[in-house]
Amino acid sequence: MTHQHDHDRLQRIGMPEAVLCGTKTTEQVVAIVDELVSAITEPRLFTRLTDEQLAALAPGVVARLDDDRVSRTAILNGMLPERPGRVVVVAAGTSDAAVATEAARTLAFSGVQCRTIVDVGVAGLWRLEARLDEIRQADIVIAVAGMDAALVSVLGGLVSAPVIAVPTSVGYGVATGGTAALHSSLASCAQGVAVVNIDNGFGAACAAVRMLSLFGGSPT
Amino acid sequence: MTHQHDHDRLQRIGMPEAVLCGTKTTEQVVAIVDELVSAITEPRLFTRLTDEQLAALAPGVVARLDDDRVSRTAILNGMLPERPGRVVVVAAGTSDAAVATEAARTLAFSGVQCRTIVDVGVAGLWRLEARLDEIRQADIVIAVAGMDAALVSVLGGLVSAPVIAVPTSVGYGVATGGTAALHSSLASCAQGVAVVNIDNGFGAACAAVRMLSLFGGSPT
Amino acid sequence: MTHQHDHDRLQRIGMPEAVLCGTKTTEQVVAIVDELVSAITEPRLFTRLTDEQLAALAPGVVARLDDDRVSRTAILNGMLPERPGRVVVVAAGTSDAAVATEAARTLAFSGVQCRTIVDVGVAGLWRLEARLDEIRQADIVIAVAGMDAALVSVLGGLVSAPVIAVPTSVGYGVATGGTAALHSSLASCAQGVAVVNIDNGFGAACAAVRMLSLFGGSPT
Amino acid sequence: MTHQHDHDRLQRIGMPEAVLCGTKTTEQVVAIVDELVSAITEPRLFTRLTDEQLAALAPGVVARLDDDRVSRTAILNGMLPERPGRVVVVAAGTSDAAVATEAARTLAFSGVQCRTIVDVGVAGLWRLEARLDEIRQADIVIAVAGMDAALVSVLGGLVSAPVIAVPTSVGYGVATGGTAALHSSLASCAQGVAVVNIDNGFGAACAAVRMLSLFGGSPT
Amino acid sequence: MTHQHDHDRLQRIGMPEAVLCGTKTTEQVVAIVDELVSAITEPRLFTRLTDEQLAALAPGVVARLDDDRVSRTAILNGMLPERPGRVVVVAAGTSDAAVATEAARTLAFSGVQCRTIVDVGVAGLWRLEARLDEIRQADIVIAVAGMDAALVSVLGGLVSAPVIAVPTSVGYGVATGGTAALHSSLASCAQGVAVVNIDNGFGAACAAVRMLSLFGGSPT
Amino acid sequence: MTHQHDHDRLQRIGMPEAVLCGTKTTEQVVAIVDELVSAITEPRLFTRLTDEQLAALAPGVVARLDDDRVSRTAILNGMLPERPGRVVVVAAGTSDAAVATEAARTLAFSGVQCRTIVDVGVAGLWRLEARLDEIRQADIVIAVAGMDAALVSVLGGLVSAPVIAVPTSVGYGVATGGTAALHSSLASCAQGVAVVNIDNGFGAACAAVRMLSLFGGSPT
Amino acid sequence: MTHQHDHDRLQRIGMPEAVLCGTKTTEQVVAIVDELVSAITEPRLFTRLTDEQLAALAPGVVARLDDDRVSRTAILNGMLPERPGRVVVVAAGTSDAAVATEAARTLAFSGVQCRTIVDVGVAGLWRLEARLDEIRQADIVIAVAGMDAALVSVLGGLVSAPVIAVPTSVGYGVATGGTAALHSSLASCAQGVAVVNIDNGFGAACAAVRMLSLFGGSPT
Amino acid sequence: MTHQHDHDRLQRIGMPEAVLCGTKTTEQVVAIVDELVSAITEPRLFTRLTDEQLAALAPGVVARLDDDRVSRTAILNGMLPERPGRVVVVAAGTSDAAVATEAARTLAFSGVQCRTIVDVGVAGLWRLEARLDEIRQADIVIAVAGMDAALVSVLGGLVSAPVIAVPTSVGYGVATGGTAALHSSLASCAQGVAVVNIDNGFGAACAAVRMLSLFGGSPT
Repeated sequence: MTHQHDHDRLQRIGMPEAVLCGTKTTEQVVAIVDELVSAITEPRLFTRLTDEQLAALAPGVVARLDDDRVSRTAILNGMLPERPGRVVVVAAGTSDAAVATEAARTLAFSGVQCRTIVDVGVAGLWRLEARLDEIRQADIVIAVAGMDAALVSVLGGLVSAPVIAVPTSVGYGVATGGTAALHSSLASCAQGVAVVNIDNGFGAACAAVRMLSLFGGSPT
Repeated sequence: MTHQHDHDRLQRIGMPEAVLCGTKTTEQVVAIVDELVSAITEPRLFTRLTDEQLAALAPGVVARLDDDRVSRTAILNGMLPERPGRVVVVAAGTSDAAVATEAARTLAFSGVQCRTIVDVGVAGLWRLEARLDEIRQADIVIAVAGMDAALVSVLGGLVSAPVIAVPTSVGYGVATGGTAALHSSLASCAQGVAVVNIDNGFGAACAAVRMLSLFGGSPT
Repeated sequence: MTHQHDHDRLQRIGMPEAVLCGTKTTEQVVAIVDELVSAITEPRLFTRLTDEQLAALAPGVVARLDDDRVSRTAILNGMLPERPGRVVVVAAGTSDAAVATEAARTLAFSGVQCRTIVDVGVAGLWRLEARLDEIRQADIVIAVAGMDAALVSVLGGLVSAPVIAVPTSVGYGVATGGTAALHSSLASCAQGVAVVNIDNGFGAACAAVRMLSLFGGSPT
Repeated sequence: MTHQHDHDRLQRIGMPEAVLCGTKTTEQVVAIVDELVSAITEPRLFTRLTDEQLAALAPGVVARLDDDRVSRTAILNGMLPERPGRVVVVAAGTSDAAVATEAARTLAFSGVQCRTIVDVGVAGLWRLEARLDEIRQADIVIAVAGMDAALVSVLGGLVSAPVIAVPTSVGYGVATGGTAALHSSLASCAQGVAVVNIDNGFGAACAAVRMLSLFGGSPT
Repeated sequence: MTHQHDHDRLQRIGMPEAVLCGTKTTEQVVAIVDELVSAITEPRLFTRLTDEQLAALAPGVVARLDDDRVSRTAILNGMLPERPGRVVVVAAGTSDAAVATEAARTLAFSGVQCRTIVDVGVAGLWRLEARLDEIRQADIVIAVAGMDAALVSVLGGLVSAPVIAVPTSVGYGVATGGTAALHSSLASCAQGVAVVNIDNGFGAACAAVRMLSLFGGSPT
Repeated sequence: MTHQHDHDRLQRIGMPEAVLCGTKTTEQVVAIVDELVSAITEPRLFTRLTDEQLAALAPGVVARLDDDRVSRTAILNGMLPERPGRVVVVAAGTSDAAVATEAARTLAFSGVQCRTIVDVGVAGLWRLEARLDEIRQADIVIAVAGMDAALVSVLGGLVSAPVIAVPTSVGYGVATGGTAALHSSLASCAQGVAVVNIDNGFGAACAAVRMLSLFGGSPT
Repeated sequence: MTHQHDHDRLQRIGMPEAVLCGTKTTEQVVAIVDELVSAITEPRLFTRLTDEQLAALAPGVVARLDDDRVSRTAILNGMLPERPGRVVVVAAGTSDAAVATEAARTLAFSGVQCRTIVDVGVAGLWRLEARLDEIRQADIVIAVAGMDAALVSVLGGLVSAPVIAVPTSVGYGVATGGTAALHSSLASCAQGVAVVNIDNGFGAACAAVRMLSLFGGSPT
Repeated sequence: MTHQHDHDRLQRIGMPEAVLCGTKTTEQVVAIVDELVSAITEPRLFTRLTDEQLAALAPGVVARLDDDRVSRTAILNGMLPERPGRVVVVAAGTSDAAVATEAARTLAFSGVQCRTIVDVGVAGLWRLEARLDEIRQADIVIAVAGMDAALVSVLGGLVSAPVIAVPTSVGYGVATGGTAALHSSLASCAQGVAVVNIDNGFGAACAAVRMLSLFGGSPT
């Protein structure tokens, strides 16, 4: 069973295939990374790369990777060319940092300018209001929040830009696993909020990249 | 099978027994109301009295009741004596009015001064902020909200008074039945929010009544 | 309790407040429509307006409304000014028509050019492939699907434009209520698909409107 | 990404911000504790501090903390000033001790006088009845129970004080995760019981602190 | 498709086959009752016979039935011979009467002596305690309760007889459908409580009949 | 916090209090066992005693215990006096052995004669039929089964004795955690099957002990 | 929006497209039937055709349909050519007749010889055993069962033919909606049982048709 | 408790009993393997054999086994005789390899010719289309997919052979545990897809073996 790459995905949907490592065995990840390191020269992103998987890679392979342990992402062969547009990733709390950084790293990999704002949960609403001008300057807002995800609704009611919610699995009790945050985001009273899967910082960034293609869109 | 009344509940927990009609058959409700109308002289509250049940009561019986169709509550033999304390019931939207009114009516029945504020959902945050001074004057805040129940967290972060959240079953999709609002309220990032069952405006009012007993409490 | 309008929502987030009628009583809807008909001159959208609610409105009021029974939407005071951008609404089957039409009507109300394509479920993949060129000409794709929602993933893998999935509650057994379609959409193997609540055609259109604001965005 | 403190929360809602360590990485907790130890002089509470996180702190930092391993709480810079009011924490069994102690420690941190009673589950009802006078002397009752949480209903029917239920995740089978206890508490036949999230001893204490503010309330 | 009777069930398991009407169409029920009325002379029990189904039966057929609308049961050809043993059916509230009566009627049909006690929910614990001697005289206790089903645990801790819990679907919010009561009963802190399906008064009675076979058991 | 024993439970409900170790910390279990070893002379049962907890006990304490690692039970001060009646524990497969043995050990502790039959799942129905005479000689049948728990229904249809079903958490996919087996047992087409919580072999044995009290019951 | 037919489905997968009416509005069904009646001459199957939808069709259209109200199916333009192979549909009880008949009608429409056996639930195992020889003569077994679906496992352990399980939504309490039967079927201890969606008699028949294509398969 | 083998299962249903090791303790597995190695000479399959269990076997026993660590299967005494028919196992991604290989190994053990195709998820639809001729040559298709399982529907719409879907537990967020993939497979818009339990590669292969018995079926 050799890995069959979707080699024209970049042309087809604007983003290359990424390798989701977290659902693969260490042996599978090592084999895939080894193969890609020797076979391709284009940029490639690895997500959910566990510490154990990273440790199993040969040193020469690791040296080829731009690795970040907060987001557990690794990048091979550098970033994609820059794209127009600015994205802001807004996270409710420190506990959401891993997911927020996965989004930010995916955006950086995709050539998108990105800023991250953390610790603006609505329990202290003034903190969000203090950063609102900064947030409104972005073309797209990615809102990362666990627990009640109230940040998503508040943001959605305050900005006109596209808001992409990433519920996180941070929490306990009814918030365990992130379903409470997911449902809260989907049922947001702020109209037009778009949602991705729990903890899917990568997917939120990809959704943003799709949207940024509109800059070169039909009206011109 | 005769109805066995918990006649000393008022003495024991500060509130008399109420009759939850919605889970009973029309025949059962008619029998209970008839019995109470002829047997007691103390105030008694009926909740979730359906239109069908109300229509099945004899006119003479209905004349004895103070009935409200928005909240589906009916009161027999007037209100309980006034108690100190002011409660505000804050509802996110018009769809939450039935539950909010059930809370308000239960408070009125219990002799508690109450004000109701509707249509302050966080999708338009300025509406809540415009009423904040008014809300802060209350001793206790009951927050009624469906969908994402973001109102609960925002309120909990802005006021120091006890906040009792009543998630409502208003909504569709993931919000159907009120579980999304319930989980959002329980997982609220605002510390110290207390929650009652979905649509339980009556229970929220009773919780408030328990709290108001603190006015005559130990420190004095 | 008077209805408190979020009058500056259009300025704040690019879309005016809409009235979700389905979660309100007939009495509440009649009161709100009556008030708005006499009070405002700007366009306003009503969604999930039931047949019973419509029948309860005065004839003179109904005459003021542009009503559509497939989508259960009604529009007061005409459409919003035209916006740049083309959206295509792609629905898996006839059963999804009500939701698809809600999205299309909301887009029309918002001044957005929209086309609807129905009956392209992946059980007969050639039907989707036959319409693919047409779909690719759109700036944004709204994919409406119930049951397994496989259409969402297939579309997401074939187009580079933003894809907004609207899972529908159409179905039976494990598909009852739309959770299967929702989870399938959120877990889509196609990267960057954004999702809204089950049956929320209105929300998908609002998300599209947010995205279309990018046409006038930062790169210029 | 620096931690952004909600510095005026004590003034705003009567309780300072606490640091929930359990949802953060060890690296994040170490950084936050280090920063707070050197930056602030006011009391601060840390909850869900894991053994691993505690072990990762520098000895000098640990020496500054008042740590308790049963509740996994740590307190920096001493307790808050005393407040009027007495709270009793009643736990069904030994298995609920961690959560009960989290509530008790949070109350102590907040300057509230608190007593804890354990092993009064209703399987041996006489044990609860033997302590009832003691419980009735408290201004507020926090009921901590897992499994069927029957203790909550029994207590709610016996005392007139506010009852705050904390369902615990103790249990197996249908009780796994605490949902059975949560639903039982929310559906309690005793009217006016307020509920917080599963295992949220901290939240129950905060709800009590909010209620104790009523001692200085409006009636005087 | 003719109905195939399990004619020797009485010999095999001590109870004849009963006809659960609620899950059948009116046409099916009419056909089965007609067939049984003309074909058998032994006692037969029908459960969940809806008003519509009853109305569809021929008058001559109805005249053959001993029908009870509270429990929605009908009995053809009289009761089974008397069996030794006394069962008490204890119901938390009036709302549980239909299920309690289904159990009582099934016991009567089975020749078992039965008493029913209603309105002894633990919200007013003294009511249960007042009836405790009476309950303790029974050989088997069937506890019928919805909402939090706290009655089950309290009873299980107070009597040594077999306790069979019947959770009911009475309730709203988290108690809708009876799952909260079911889980509470299964997780009861009182050891050795046995549980049957939600609303299954018939099944509880059958379990009691099985147990009563022990009176003629091995030790003698 | 000292452990408060329910010392008269044997008199009250026919079984002494048991100590469920699995939900307690090792420190708590060590303290309780130490206390009981030195304080009481009556028999006492410990369930779900983990290997880690056992290893933490002092050798002198372990020597006092009759420990069984298959069922993870330990018994202090010997068995209770013999009771009349024979119970058979029937388990679908080897994977259910731990739970079946917990039931058997609890019965032995309670002075009840018990036999265990394993590997009679209905996938090979002849195996069950081969043991049917043996099973029918028992006064009570405890059926232990995971996955689809079809054994419960088949047994319930073949024997007239009380059948107590213990669903087990054995399984994967939809059977993970035991809910499939639990629901299958509760919905059993065999009338009068009683059910206890998932994996609750102890509870099934206690239910059997309650039933065996009928041997000395009312008819004599 | 015109209906877009998947006209070559018969060639592609061996079965023509069927029209699932139950998820469509009456208006949509009338339009589709009218169009097909006038446009095609090949056989076509309609499933879940409600009474209301049937009543809305023009008499001339109804006359063209072969309608069956038990299964709520209608057939236009006769049956497909006969195919080799015999299928038996085995249903646990009368309540499962609608689903079983949907399967049988779909098979008949597909040109497959089919026999239906009802009332062989495992509560009376002898009834199934009495029909076993007959069942074993079939090439494929479709097992239709609700509640605990124990019939599926018992059948799967007794026959070597393919077994297709159709869980039904018949039942109450934990069996409501059919999830218990579905999970029981999927977790069947009988190896190699295949399952379709709840109540999906049509799908089970289609799966059987796919399998019958093996008669002309590779080994020859 | 000795293991009771279902020795005639091969004759009865066409497949011998297999040993599911994953739900058994290491001690139980070692005992069963030891017993079978010394007692039988027929082929026997072990599934879900964990690394820990394998390591606990005596070297002489391991030498007797044909072990495969990707699928965690082991085979004793070689394969069953060859059967006619070709099966293709199609897996969406590398993460599904363990389940796909379990299916392939079970087929090989059963004497069935099998081919495995991996990495044909619908996110890159051309990959599946490139292999379609190869897939169509198979008599039966086993589709292994996690996340949204869209592969199942697409395959079901493209081939006329029986399609057996195996949802996998691969994924995160709403896809955790495989329920999303299961529901998507069951609700597949492609008619006649049969489904087995999550991760049940073994069961899918057994279902295929049942179907292959049709080659010698009735029409000849």
